[in-house]
Amino acid sequence: MAGKADRTREQILDKAQSLFAEKGFKQVTMKDVCQITGMSRGGLYSHFSSTAEIFEALLEKMTSNDAMDFRGMINEGVSAHSILQGALEQIKEEMLSPEDSLSLAMYEYGETVDSKVMAKLNEDANKKWADLIRYGIRRGEFKDVDVEEVVNVILYSYQGVRMWSRVVALKQETVSSICEHIWKTLIGE
Amino acid sequence: MAGKADRTREQILDKAQSLFAEKGFKQVTMKDVCQITGMSRGGLYSHFSSTAEIFEALLEKMTSNDAMDFRGMINEGVSAHSILQGALEQIKEEMLSPEDSLSLAMYEYGETVDSKVMAKLNEDANKKWADLIRYGIRRGEFKDVDVEEVVNVILYSYQGVRMWSRVVALKQETVSSICEHIWKTLIGE
Repeated sequence: MAGKADRTREQILDKAQSLFAEKGFKQVTMKDVCQITGMSRGGLYSHFSSTAEIFEALLEKMTSNDAMDFRGMINEGVSAHSILQGALEQIKEEMLSPEDSLSLAMYEYGETVDSKVMAKLNEDANKKWADLIRYGIRRGEFKDVDVEEVVNVILYSYQGVRMWSRVVALKQETVSSICEHIWKTLIGE
Repeated sequence: MAGKADRTREQILDKAQSLFAEKGFKQVTMKDVCQITGMSRGGLYSHFSSTAEIFEALLEKMTSNDAMDFRGMINEGVSAHSILQGALEQIKEEMLSPEDSLSLAMYEYGETVDSKVMAKLNEDANKKWADLIRYGIRRGEFKDVDVEEVVNVILYSYQGVRMWSRVVALKQETVSSICEHIWKTLIGE
């Protein structure tokens, strides 16, 4: 069971996400986070020492989402079909929530604080998808595609949508069609 | 032959592009443009009345690139293969030039000035690619793909790369593999 400190931490991350999504990274201050969480300065600083630390914790939380724990599911022998289906549902949901998109914040964080964190994030996502696709091919569930190619198309089309959905009204069909394309590429019609 | 005013305009756009690419849209002032072009305030204002006007002219210039004039080539009966090849070369070159990427500036412009310009840009690109793909299918040069789906994959993976290449060092293979994927999807191995 999560302790009180963990729950407070979760609440900070939830509220901070909407701040970063709205304002990007650079314009968010610890004072803004105090305001939105209703916490005192001392209270907030006992959990996080800077907006960079909050932002990094947020990225970590996002990437450890259950539906995206490919390695865990692969180890349990879950079918590649099911893993892909769950992952596509998850990224579809994310793509359809432009108000939660951290694209601009990630961009600003990468430019102003530490581009290595972004490089690492990119590498991890790359490896994770490549492992899933290889697993699917090995089990005969996926077509024998060029793994790196398909991973790049998945990650970059996802990022393109995440970013542009903040600027241009996104149609649900756009998102569905991209997920459809990934499915067709790996599994067929 | 282009007159002196046209040449000056071109020079302003060229220099302004590097400014917008470096700083985004919001942080660029007319004073910055004077400085980088070496023009007087009066001189610059005789061509453009605001950074928004410069930025819009720049977007227009970029989208009217020869290699991307699909309609013109379709009307001349150029093969869909050749048009696609030229277009992929063009977008590959663009993707490999993160220093020219206007992604952040477009994002900021869309958020602060006019999101309609971005919606229009998006619509035009969409229509242009859809026309090319339908033309290729009609001529039996392209596979009978789902047009909207492939257009979305092309446009969003391109935008994803354009944006992320500013934050994370981009490998040439990443860009090549995305172009390869588009080629395979439309034409086959």
